[in-house]
Amino acid sequence: FNIALLAGDGIGPEVIDQAVKVSDAVAKKFDHEINWKPALTGAAAIDAVGEPYPDETHKICANADAVLFGAIGHPKFDNDPSAKVRPEQGLLKMRKALGLFANVRPTFTFPSLLDKSPLKKERIEGTDLVFLRELTGGIYFGEKGRRDEGETAYDNCVYTRAEVQRLAKKGFELAMTRSKKLCCVDKANVLETSRLWRETVQAMEKDYPEVEVSYEFVDAVAMRLVQWPNSYDVLITENLFGDILTDEASVISGSMGLMPSASLGSDIGLFEPIHGSYPQAAGKNIANPMATVLSAAMMFENFGLLEEGKAIREAVNKALNEGMVTEDLSDGGKSFGTSEVGDWLA
Amino acid sequence: FNIALLAGDGIGPEVIDQAVKVSDAVAKKFDHEINWKPALTGAAAIDAVGEPYPDETHKICANADAVLFGAIGHPKFDNDPSAKVRPEQGLLKMRKALGLFANVRPTFTFPSLLDKSPLKKERIEGTDLVFLRELTGGIYFGEKGRRDEGETAYDNCVYTRAEVQRLAKKGFELAMTRSKKLCCVDKANVLETSRLWRETVQAMEKDYPEVEVSYEFVDAVAMRLVQWPNSYDVLITENLFGDILTDEASVISGSMGLMPSASLGSDIGLFEPIHGSYPQAAGKNIANPMATVLSAAMMFENFGLLEEGKAIREAVNKALNEGMVTEDLSDGGKSFGTSEVGDWLA
Ligand SMILES: CC(C)[C@H](C(=O)O)[C@@H](O)C(=O)O
Ligand SMILES: CC(C)[C@H](C(=O)O)[C@@H](O)C(=O)O
Repeated sequence: FNIALLAGDGIGPEVIDQAVKVSDAVAKKFDHEINWKPALTGAAAIDAVGEPYPDETHKICANADAVLFGAIGHPKFDNDPSAKVRPEQGLLKMRKALGLFANVRPTFTFPSLLDKSPLKKERIEGTDLVFLRELTGGIYFGEKGRRDEGETAYDNCVYTRAEVQRLAKKGFELAMTRSKKLCCVDKANVLETSRLWRETVQAMEKDYPEVEVSYEFVDAVAMRLVQWPNSYDVLITENLFGDILTDEASVISGSMGLMPSASLGSDIGLFEPIHGSYPQAAGKNIANPMATVLSAAMMFENFGLLEEGKAIREAVNKALNEGMVTEDLSDGGKSFGTSEVGDWLA
Repeated sequence: FNIALLAGDGIGPEVIDQAVKVSDAVAKKFDHEINWKPALTGAAAIDAVGEPYPDETHKICANADAVLFGAIGHPKFDNDPSAKVRPEQGLLKMRKALGLFANVRPTFTFPSLLDKSPLKKERIEGTDLVFLRELTGGIYFGEKGRRDEGETAYDNCVYTRAEVQRLAKKGFELAMTRSKKLCCVDKANVLETSRLWRETVQAMEKDYPEVEVSYEFVDAVAMRLVQWPNSYDVLITENLFGDILTDEASVISGSMGLMPSASLGSDIGLFEPIHGSYPQAAGKNIANPMATVLSAAMMFENFGLLEEGKAIREAVNKALNEGMVTEDLSDGGKSFGTSEVGDWLA
């Protein structure tokens, strides 16, 4: 396998290092070979070559079998969202250029971490849901700008039936491998794009007769995710709703620092932890590498290598049970460094 | 005072009756006179005259000092979001026609109800926040439609600086009466309308030197609302973000059935509980009238009648402490009917 390695900013490089160690160990055990192809992205790329997703990086990604991604973002860009060059632009450009239209974001619980959830135990126990967020369309990529000498701003949200179909197809397929429940999240009582989403998904139901599909408004889902998160299984939604709801879902489990994600398209998948670049912790060997390591597990699984993925997941579970954890999970007890946890997992 | 009375659907009429009783009692005590002007809305209006917000109703509202609103919505419309006539259309038309551009949605806790929250006690204790949601602009009201023979759908999100200013002004003013903390919620790293929001609010900061303003992305707020709701005070945001976040906020307190709201514009305010029409409970004298009663308190307060509002709030607190509650709050203990609770409060 050729894997593009985009470490990015902040704690990105440290956590990526651990995922590389663990992946190499798994590759060795199962007799694969991984060629890592490092490339610049984020603030690190802006500093080095003036843009967050350079052509050179795109070339490396486009020729790889998958991309393993750390995190991007640096405080120096945070207070000026209209700055000309920003790490986020690189992210959006990359998603579009690599055709990563489906962002897969699971939220699940680890029994040993239930106490960390802001939710009461009986609410969160057993939660195991997956969002499929559309990632290359909608209001993120529609025409935007100003008129009336800057006094009026606009953003256009656009979806085609084909865009909805390809995302929904992944949703139905994922539902078939799980409990066969699919929830389509929209705002069809107000938005025309949502009505297109709903009618498109409705028309696909007949191709997946075993899947039980429900339709819920985004505001209702924002509520129920806090009330009864374990009532959901697979959820599909458009780009902006997905941005908001996946972040909301990520914190309810109490395991946000452990949640991996995948962004999938036609060919090359991208795998990354959902946490950010956490600049305050950079270089201190304290960041939790498990989300990135679990992202590598998703990468193997996406290659169809389920045993390899399982081996990684089991190692992480074991580490959690045996207290081989970084300080964010140690509750004031004994904790280990980022690289020690990585070594142990490997 | 002339108050338009829009009871609406489901439990609307029952809970409105209690708010009328309580308002009349307060009016008597403080020597005011209220003329109630009932008018049709929602599914009830569709059934009677074919549309959810008839001209006749608009006339009554436009000539009133305020509108007291129950709830709208009926299951027979729920499964067909693109039906030609729907209760929601009446709601949007009414908001626009009455210039109700600021939706004020508080989330607070009642000590006796902390246990009902899905959140752990230490997370939710002390929460007392208010959302100001822009209600007559953004993607709700921009041009929407189809092209390419229905294969492509679009919704336009548009904001003018003046729209942002008038909403933000209410936010700054509200912050001045509270803890002087204001959070502007946007997605300025992606959306041009959000950048207009942010720059407009930034430019207004100098007029309110005492208010400490923070800017947060909508996805981050969706997380922090679950993690540390008590870290927020006044939040301002655009229409769609407000729809999602206010619903999310409403359930964290465990007191959703008790939350009132106000929609304000230039002249006439509208006051309504945030809960829906709850058709399953309609006519059973079991619905909790407190959110509607507290909405009447907001109405008095909006007239500048703070003592009157306080009298109502104290009655509600007393009822909660003394167990004079409907079955949703009785925990299997003794409970009372909708109208008994209303009588007691009055
Ligand atoms: C950084 C930002 C542009 C991005 C998004 O909104 O997609 C982020 O919030 C995410 O969810 O990956
Ligand atoms: C019914 C719907 C149109 C409405 C909205 O989205 O504004 C509702 O969700 C609300 O928040 O009042």
